[in-house]
Amino acid sequence: MSILAVGSVAFDCIASPAGRADDVLGGSATYFALAASYFTDVRIVAVVGEDFTAQHEQVFKSHGVDTRGIEHAKGKTFRWGGQYRDNLNEAKTDFTHLNVFEKFQPRIPQAYADSQFLFLGNINPSLQTAVRRGLDGVRLTGGDTMNFWINGARADLLETLKVMNILLINDTEAKMLAGDSSLPRAARKVLAMGPQALVVKHGEYGATIFFREGAFGLGSHPFRAPALPIEEVKDPTGAGDSFAGGFMGYIASQQQLNREVLKRALFYGGVMGSFAVEQFGTERLQTLTRDEIDARFQVFRELTHLE
Amino acid sequence: MSILAVGSVAFDCIASPAGRADDVLGGSATYFALAASYFTDVRIVAVVGEDFTAQHEQVFKSHGVDTRGIEHAKGKTFRWGGQYRDNLNEAKTDFTHLNVFEKFQPRIPQAYADSQFLFLGNINPSLQTAVRRGLDGVRLTGGDTMNFWINGARADLLETLKVMNILLINDTEAKMLAGDSSLPRAARKVLAMGPQALVVKHGEYGATIFFREGAFGLGSHPFRAPALPIEEVKDPTGAGDSFAGGFMGYIASQQQLNREVLKRALFYGGVMGSFAVEQFGTERLQTLTRDEIDARFQVFRELTHLE
Repeated sequence: MSILAVGSVAFDCIASPAGRADDVLGGSATYFALAASYFTDVRIVAVVGEDFTAQHEQVFKSHGVDTRGIEHAKGKTFRWGGQYRDNLNEAKTDFTHLNVFEKFQPRIPQAYADSQFLFLGNINPSLQTAVRRGLDGVRLTGGDTMNFWINGARADLLETLKVMNILLINDTEAKMLAGDSSLPRAARKVLAMGPQALVVKHGEYGATIFFREGAFGLGSHPFRAPALPIEEVKDPTGAGDSFAGGFMGYIASQQQLNREVLKRALFYGGVMGSFAVEQFGTERLQTLTRDEIDARFQVFRELTHLE
Repeated sequence: MSILAVGSVAFDCIASPAGRADDVLGGSATYFALAASYFTDVRIVAVVGEDFTAQHEQVFKSHGVDTRGIEHAKGKTFRWGGQYRDNLNEAKTDFTHLNVFEKFQPRIPQAYADSQFLFLGNINPSLQTAVRRGLDGVRLTGGDTMNFWINGARADLLETLKVMNILLINDTEAKMLAGDSSLPRAARKVLAMGPQALVVKHGEYGATIFFREGAFGLGSHPFRAPALPIEEVKDPTGAGDSFAGGFMGYIASQQQLNREVLKRALFYGGVMGSFAVEQFGTERLQTLTRDEIDARFQVFRELTHLE
């Protein structure tokens, strides 16, 4: 079934120990859409500037992504520059030019009104809430946020969490949101804010999904998926959104929505994140095949599977 | 089969957000021996002072640990004091009084000469090497080390690694030893120094075992075991040695030594580490049952198991 992704499209300038890439297509909606496109139909809502060409749009179209929700505004596309040094888990931002993204007001095309799955990329939480409230047929909403909103727009974010079924954030964000340095305790507090499930991403150590008691089936045991030990991470940019794309894309491709599906989705999230970091920008995500994805899923499975 | 542990016996003063404990029995050999005692017969070589009483020795004896290798020296037992604050993964040392441990020269009793499994706790690498060379019948040697020896006694440590089959260290130590910030690359470099396998402990994220190509069976894919998300870690002291005790103890209890055994051993390592941190000092390790251990093994298995 179709999944609608709302977020940013950007041009990134990235430097890492493996080299650099300039003005490459990026943004949360881009990474998410490409990753999810290997599992299901994807629709995108974002804003771009006049420097966004037909060639850029073709990257989406060639993966079957519906681009009718991309708004073309006067001015330049969102630009971000950052570098990774010794710590590949953290980017040092060189510049952030919001450009047309600064006034982004997501508009959902009529053709997207029947979307059953929704991903709210990391944007202002009040916009996230408005998007969700404007879509009646949505069965499952996943979303992301960051320290900027956790600290700076907490009241708005708490409203958003009431309409989000699954929140996907990292360890630091989860602990910050809950105000608790113990991850399991923090997870319990976040789940009490609204979501039925919380996915906490641990970077090179994988991810854990915590369930609210009784959500998606009986019990409330967490589940953990590993990450692949990768010799050379070229560019971690977009790993989290690619994770979300694999996770949500797999869910949307399934008939059922139960705990076993969510467990497999967590593995597929890790798989897509692991591909994303192998090349700069979205390069690797553009050239994948479903066979490669499923082969790596098996590798991830073997990585923790006892006979 | 019997496993011989060489390391420290200490009295620890520990403070954490959960409280404090003073002069509790600790040390690498103590945590290791108690954890391993649930799987196999354990023998211990360590040195204690005159403040080590029959009651302390009874803690070992009541778990069937052979204490004939504990040397009673004039003076006081090794004492360590430390505290854990926000970051439970790192202790701030308040004091280290080596006392009788300063001149520790491990002496292996004749009754231990037939030991087939050996664990070399974190002591001077030249002592570790001497112990291993003095034991002809050993089939498998596991061992630990730390930044102090990696930086300060590198040449000695490199000799030790040639006689160690499995090295168990944490991420920071592995990267430091290899001089490489990528864990998989660091693992490959460490394996080239001697060990057939390297266990890297990730704290709350579990552990990964890396194999030298062809060691313990075909292939060289790493394997990862999770750690249980624990709401309240009371005292992380000894978690690594308890991990090693579960890991090596399980291996010593098996007829075969192959990759599947090592994978299960990695899970049992995580299980014993997870128990150790639930109470201060060795309190939890003293009161376990094998049923509790196997029940938690199943929880760990479920934590990452796909149908």
